[in-house]
Amino acid sequence: MTMKLTGIGASAGIAIAKAFHLVPPDLTVVKEEVNDINKEIEKFDLSLETAKGELEAIKEKTLQSLGEEHAEIFSAHILVLSDPELVDTIRNKVRDEKVNAAYALKAVADQFIAMFEAMENEYMKERAADIRDVSQRVLAHVLGKPIVSLTEINEEVIIIAEDLTPSDTAQLNKQFVKGFVTDIGGRTSHSAIMARSMEIPAVVGTKSITGEAEHGITIIVDGMEGDVILNPSSTELADYEKKKQEHEEQKREWAKLVHEATTTKDGHHVELAANIGTPKDIEGVKNNGGEAVGLYRTEFLYMGRDQLPTEEEQFQAYKSVAEAMDGKPVVIRTLDIGGDKELPYLDLPKEMNPFLGFRAIRLCLEQDDMFRTQLRALLRASAFGNIKIMFPMIATLSEFRQAKQILEQERKGLLDNGTEVSDSIEIGIMVEIPSTAVMAEQFAKEVDFFSIGTNDLIQYTMAADRMNEQVSYLYQPYNPAILRLIKMVIDASHKEGKWTGMCGEMAGDSVAIPLLLGLGLDEFSMSATSILPARSQLAGITKEAAEKVAQEALHLNTAEEVKSLVEKSFIK
Amino acid sequence: MTMKLTGIGASAGIAIAKAFHLVPPDLTVVKEEVNDINKEIEKFDLSLETAKGELEAIKEKTLQSLGEEHAEIFSAHILVLSDPELVDTIRNKVRDEKVNAAYALKAVADQFIAMFEAMENEYMKERAADIRDVSQRVLAHVLGKPIVSLTEINEEVIIIAEDLTPSDTAQLNKQFVKGFVTDIGGRTSHSAIMARSMEIPAVVGTKSITGEAEHGITIIVDGMEGDVILNPSSTELADYEKKKQEHEEQKREWAKLVHEATTTKDGHHVELAANIGTPKDIEGVKNNGGEAVGLYRTEFLYMGRDQLPTEEEQFQAYKSVAEAMDGKPVVIRTLDIGGDKELPYLDLPKEMNPFLGFRAIRLCLEQDDMFRTQLRALLRASAFGNIKIMFPMIATLSEFRQAKQILEQERKGLLDNGTEVSDSIEIGIMVEIPSTAVMAEQFAKEVDFFSIGTNDLIQYTMAADRMNEQVSYLYQPYNPAILRLIKMVIDASHKEGKWTGMCGEMAGDSVAIPLLLGLGLDEFSMSATSILPARSQLAGITKEAAEKVAQEALHLNTAEEVKSLVEKSFIK
Repeated sequence: MTMKLTGIGASAGIAIAKAFHLVPPDLTVVKEEVNDINKEIEKFDLSLETAKGELEAIKEKTLQSLGEEHAEIFSAHILVLSDPELVDTIRNKVRDEKVNAAYALKAVADQFIAMFEAMENEYMKERAADIRDVSQRVLAHVLGKPIVSLTEINEEVIIIAEDLTPSDTAQLNKQFVKGFVTDIGGRTSHSAIMARSMEIPAVVGTKSITGEAEHGITIIVDGMEGDVILNPSSTELADYEKKKQEHEEQKREWAKLVHEATTTKDGHHVELAANIGTPKDIEGVKNNGGEAVGLYRTEFLYMGRDQLPTEEEQFQAYKSVAEAMDGKPVVIRTLDIGGDKELPYLDLPKEMNPFLGFRAIRLCLEQDDMFRTQLRALLRASAFGNIKIMFPMIATLSEFRQAKQILEQERKGLLDNGTEVSDSIEIGIMVEIPSTAVMAEQFAKEVDFFSIGTNDLIQYTMAADRMNEQVSYLYQPYNPAILRLIKMVIDASHKEGKWTGMCGEMAGDSVAIPLLLGLGLDEFSMSATSILPARSQLAGITKEAAEKVAQEALHLNTAEEVKSLVEKSFIK
Repeated sequence: MTMKLTGIGASAGIAIAKAFHLVPPDLTVVKEEVNDINKEIEKFDLSLETAKGELEAIKEKTLQSLGEEHAEIFSAHILVLSDPELVDTIRNKVRDEKVNAAYALKAVADQFIAMFEAMENEYMKERAADIRDVSQRVLAHVLGKPIVSLTEINEEVIIIAEDLTPSDTAQLNKQFVKGFVTDIGGRTSHSAIMARSMEIPAVVGTKSITGEAEHGITIIVDGMEGDVILNPSSTELADYEKKKQEHEEQKREWAKLVHEATTTKDGHHVELAANIGTPKDIEGVKNNGGEAVGLYRTEFLYMGRDQLPTEEEQFQAYKSVAEAMDGKPVVIRTLDIGGDKELPYLDLPKEMNPFLGFRAIRLCLEQDDMFRTQLRALLRASAFGNIKIMFPMIATLSEFRQAKQILEQERKGLLDNGTEVSDSIEIGIMVEIPSTAVMAEQFAKEVDFFSIGTNDLIQYTMAADRMNEQVSYLYQPYNPAILRLIKMVIDASHKEGKWTGMCGEMAGDSVAIPLLLGLGLDEFSMSATSILPARSQLAGITKEAAEKVAQEALHLNTAEEVKSLVEKSFIK
């Protein structure tokens, strides 16, 4: 019987294929008395090493495909398997009680899990989840029932799961995995972001797909509308096949815009830039016609290692991006670490509210040496392209002045040593804290540019953690309060002859784009894959009409009203 | 030798007395073999019960003097001592290893502490601190060296400590404890807030007082300036004795203003109201000449118990406050719980960033029954005085409309049943989220009043957790961004003929008061003890001059510049 579920469209595109249920293997354990203890311990040790090897491989694959941030979780998992308190207790149990390894493993792991779970603390519960994950992987090997690997899928499928874990997503093979649908998650959940960067159609947060979709039935995923059709009729199949072809046709149309300028219907130019995490992302920027790098997140250089990157390592990375972009602007953000993004070797304190904590420029101004090293690397690299330097999490003018002073000291030091440094580096700030948006008028006199970081700006302005599902309804990019703050920033910059960009999710959003154009945004920085659709959309809009709608939106009451207005005016 | 340390003036006033070092007793433990195991276990059990009894007493005293919020921590401590995993392990160790109770206790406690500390997680480290605190209390009894109780001090002293714990502060006796000085802490730390409400002069965050001040030396504490003089000269003693008398004279002058109206030098009236937590706080409000209750925090009704308060219990509390204020306004805030303020019986999820989480109105709109019960109690109580209802943490107009709709449904239900309800209850909101300040123009059309909650508004606007010492420099009430948001709110309310109050720390701050007067604030709600100084200050200022200074402040660059301007203009 045909059935339709609606969730959140997490990655655009249509996929039609068989449902593939991602279910854990049966890992039931029976207690057995064993005679050959050494053999049992050997079996355990072998399984342990195999599991570690798998995790190393997944970590490596993740590092390659998704970057260091995503890969980090597997380092933690591998660490769990190297914890002598855990593994020795298992070995001792086998030895002392003469029981099978599977039983000892399960019993000890359950005990650790129970202990961590009893702690009534989110962090510890997560730790319990880590132990459960990795102990099941080892147990699967002990039992000779290795966990189904997504890499082994060899026909076209749509993955159905409660949620996809990082280790699942790292293993997805685009050739066979045509889409996925999950019970939980939102547009900014890990799996959703991953789906977009891999360009796999996906719908998340359907609440009940695992209960409704049997393994093997035909499924349609509409990643634009967030619809999932189970057991489609032949009419539906035909309709979606058509929609799929239209979407692919549209993608081909978009591809023609790769070498075009971004121009509105009435001839205004705006700059479409890309957000990147590592130098290897430049290829995607070029393939998608990016006119600049609007945000180079330098955190990845610092992650997945056991000490700070040297000045030389950083210099090479920044230089390679600057050179690869061949004179086009590259906005490099200084280190935005701390809070929820940890560097084990920095030994930062755990915080009650990491999003309101000691991070980014706050940390850099205090850990001055680390900051100066990065600034020197940036200054040296500036001689090889069009680098602009941007400070994150600036809340007060004093912080900006202090950061700029340190930068100028390092510049002078390099010049005194005869090192070449560009003499026209623009120095800007992220506007992601409400105080800075409100004070944009004063900041605009001292900075060279603004880049609005909407992910954080929205979460602080609405006082709602965007990672917390219970308050995610308050993550409202179209709330008139957000639009008003954006307007303050843009107006302030233009009054002083400066420019304003945006490097949050919002810059690539089709409802936001007309509003941002209307408010006068100069640069839109987004995922590389969003650039061509945005260019296509902008070509169909006049700036004049966008201005009128934006003006009206500023005086509406709610985000819903703003969305309706834009959809009525620009999106049919 | 005379020496001066400077910290943070946490509670006004001058104190001169001997230094009393608050140091833990020597709890060195020696391992002994014991023969009479039962006697040893009995000794442990007795010490355990004594410690529990002490904690119960401290908890009770705290409940009486400081309220339920402060008392809660001792419930947690008592719980630790009731944890069978901890106490049975100790008893077993005595039994199995035939060792003395002190040794077993220390060894087991250390093991638990080490385990929790090893977890590299702030929450767990705090748990380690809890176990250390309570196990030391028990150990002190086992060793026959009970922990020095502050209640036993019988001469005038100034307490010197690294920090004061909740159990310390709960035991302070104003008759003998004339002041205190700590190494750590800030203006909003627990001990600082407590000092202000007890009116004990205090300086916190001196960094080194415990190292510098020997037990028994004479000390001067200047809680206004944040100065501490060690071994003062006779001239200094005379100077501060004079300053102390002047301060006390000033307090007597302030006392004369109890029944006066609050009027500026040029004849403008503003309302000075008090923040309260329980009905018994009304006495303090009256003694300090409060013209209204600007914030009645209803959380305390919900805390320190194991189920929700009934409608009748709440009705009695609200009615008693309304009646006691005898027709003067009483602004009652609906439940602001969740996030960091937990109710064990509600089973709320732990959150990564509780300050940006599921709390206050967000929780109430979802846990509708609990909210409706409170609203019915408020509506019924409205017949007995001048109650105004205020919703906390409103971020969007939709939330306000939804809350108001629920209120109107309950009002209709009560009226249909023939219950008396005031027909002129004002319905307002807290403005503590930046989006709401920015959207004040739209809100002002629908609410009856605003009350600006600066504690939260500042922390969200600056994106800095005010409890986190490493970013506390960003808690800037005088930042022009904050002043601009306050101005938006006040202007929007006046345009619609509504009024704006303020119920954060800032409303009682002598530097902020001229600015807030100048921006047009109608009601200032503060700790009761700040009302008379504020009334005295306002009587010396013209609104005209305040307006000029506020206007200038809005266009300054930094909080420091604003502070200097106000001090230059109004505070000599």
